[in-house]
Amino acid sequence: MQGSLYGSAIGLSTRLERAQGVPAIRNEETRRDLSARLQAVYKVRSEPRLIEDRARGIAIEQSVETPLAAIRDPAILRRIAGTVASIEEKSGGWFDVRIDLAAETIGEDAGQLLNMLFGNCSLYEDVILDDFVSPPALTAVFGGPRHGLEALRARAGAEGRALTAVALKPQGLSAPALADLAFKLALGGIDFIKDDHGLANQRFSPFEERVRACAEAIRKANAISGKHSRYVPNLYGHFGEIEREIEIARSEGLDTVMIAPMISGVCALQALRQSSPDFALIAHPAMTGAARIAPHAFAKLFRLLGADAFIFPNPGGRFSFTPETCRKIAAALRTGAGVLKRAAPVPAGGMDLARLPGLLDFYGPDVMLLIGGSLLSAPAESIVHAAEDFVREAARIGR
Amino acid sequence: MQGSLYGSAIGLSTRLERAQGVPAIRNEETRRDLSARLQAVYKVRSEPRLIEDRARGIAIEQSVETPLAAIRDPAILRRIAGTVASIEEKSGGWFDVRIDLAAETIGEDAGQLLNMLFGNCSLYEDVILDDFVSPPALTAVFGGPRHGLEALRARAGAEGRALTAVALKPQGLSAPALADLAFKLALGGIDFIKDDHGLANQRFSPFEERVRACAEAIRKANAISGKHSRYVPNLYGHFGEIEREIEIARSEGLDTVMIAPMISGVCALQALRQSSPDFALIAHPAMTGAARIAPHAFAKLFRLLGADAFIFPNPGGRFSFTPETCRKIAAALRTGAGVLKRAAPVPAGGMDLARLPGLLDFYGPDVMLLIGGSLLSAPAESIVHAAEDFVREAARIGR
Repeated sequence: MQGSLYGSAIGLSTRLERAQGVPAIRNEETRRDLSARLQAVYKVRSEPRLIEDRARGIAIEQSVETPLAAIRDPAILRRIAGTVASIEEKSGGWFDVRIDLAAETIGEDAGQLLNMLFGNCSLYEDVILDDFVSPPALTAVFGGPRHGLEALRARAGAEGRALTAVALKPQGLSAPALADLAFKLALGGIDFIKDDHGLANQRFSPFEERVRACAEAIRKANAISGKHSRYVPNLYGHFGEIEREIEIARSEGLDTVMIAPMISGVCALQALRQSSPDFALIAHPAMTGAARIAPHAFAKLFRLLGADAFIFPNPGGRFSFTPETCRKIAAALRTGAGVLKRAAPVPAGGMDLARLPGLLDFYGPDVMLLIGGSLLSAPAESIVHAAEDFVREAARIGR
Repeated sequence: MQGSLYGSAIGLSTRLERAQGVPAIRNEETRRDLSARLQAVYKVRSEPRLIEDRARGIAIEQSVETPLAAIRDPAILRRIAGTVASIEEKSGGWFDVRIDLAAETIGEDAGQLLNMLFGNCSLYEDVILDDFVSPPALTAVFGGPRHGLEALRARAGAEGRALTAVALKPQGLSAPALADLAFKLALGGIDFIKDDHGLANQRFSPFEERVRACAEAIRKANAISGKHSRYVPNLYGHFGEIEREIEIARSEGLDTVMIAPMISGVCALQALRQSSPDFALIAHPAMTGAARIAPHAFAKLFRLLGADAFIFPNPGGRFSFTPETCRKIAAALRTGAGVLKRAAPVPAGGMDLARLPGLLDFYGPDVMLLIGGSLLSAPAESIVHAAEDFVREAARIGR
């Protein structure tokens, strides 16, 4: 792909035209909007008497990063320096602090967006990035999901029901063994059969060998079943490598991939959306942590950058996300469909069949249900049936 | 650069030969060593009666990520599944848990290294990655700093004294204004004059325009002063963009750049080390946080992946790192020089001249002292003198 353009009106306009589904904005409007503000919302723990200083300190840290005395140009103080929009006291010594940042400090780079939202402030132990509000022009620069929930559903032929997904694992299996597993799961009719996020390019199952073997296995299964199961390889490495991986996937007729943006770098997600418009992108939560950036803020960020679906740990599984956290994640992915396409929530992490009714009651049918280990724990000869049960139950309950 | 090789003995050997300063390992030894274990050290908060289950759970989560019942191949249980090496009770309900992971699950990818160390476990609120121990073959795959502290010092002509550095800021200044500032700081004789980490590719100071202007300004200052000041651009974007940025920097005769690996993705740091052996790499701590991965573990990781210097917040500045934390960071960068080159610790974040004696007493002369805003707060006509004072004091005290 081309390098990022230098923020000229022409460059921005070209990029907007490339971004499907985002209304083009006239240059003059864009110019004005880029002088608008990106709002970052932090939770800050502080003594009440110090909170105003803390808030101003964060506004400076996340913008000019220098004592105001070192700024000689009044236009920079006015236009570029972050400002405190509001401070609201919450319980337990915590405050909600809203900081307005100049959208022009972002340019068009996803890494710089993350940097401006939380780069240095990640080093404060008592500051959490809880949310952000992107102005329209910046939202248009990134563009959000190219395909979104509805397109994932259409591709899978899953109208009116929840989507189903499963992970190929464990690490250490050879490419043929993973392909054998993929064949059975596809025969069972699961919509999206994805690599475990620990499958990268290891000697026991090199990327190209695995992708070719699993893609072929699922094609064969689809030919038998008449269904539309999709294999979803896990991308690894820097963007130059990712482009090569996409070529391999495309040559096998695939159209969906998984990426962990906090491993690959958020720029890789952004670049992938631009370079590979035919692919739907499933974001994995590895390295997103839960403590210092709110999970729903990650969901919102990944959707903005182009993720069509986002995997996250559901309550009651192996991780500790609360129902409230998961409700916020789902909202971050599915609300505001007038501006960005809706992305699919993918609750996961220790899910099993018994939880399906609860999951579908909680999320409704606009969801992708991901079951991993519990499905693979079925006896080898029963995996097709276990997959069929999963698909049938998801379709029955999730209408 | 070429895509990562598929871990064949030939590929690995080629990569080892490319990695300067790392003794080549014979293929047979490499093979054996890659079956060795990478040890991850976690701090885990747990009820004592549950800690053994928690530790086993982490070992599975960070390796096969599936119930052991789903693993049918005994070789995978033996070779690939993580194992608990030790559990040690500490105070306050915390335990040190050492988990051995198979080095072969990493392949040769930095992202996968981070993923295996902390990908999913970052989602546990009560688990901190505190350290890791890389087996020799894996260390050789990544190779550590290509240049290291001594080379930085030799390039700057700073034998026997601490290195000095300063950041160009604030955001919002035009390229000519930043170049004017760079000229004054170089006249003052500061060794490394780096972009603020918030300077990416914004309209107010596009990357190429800024790099060409600042490089020229510092060349002019060096011609006047007879010194060796170096301009250090801040890289942004995905690796394809970074390669283009490096070409611009190289065309201006530069040999040092800054990168924030948790913004760009650790793979970009790894790839940069391999594709651009002429460049020394300074790692910035944006997005490293302080709460869930220990700061010294980040220092160790970035050094392993090729950083020649690492910036971190010093006690008494704007951030909350303790002296003990900083001591551990410095140790992670400078010990074990027999295996990896030493990287330069770069304490920063609200530093000023008055702190120099304390800093040099704490770190000794094997350090790069970075002063930002306080130097730039000097009146415009005094910046050259302020820079000279900084350099003189650093040289006087730091011998």
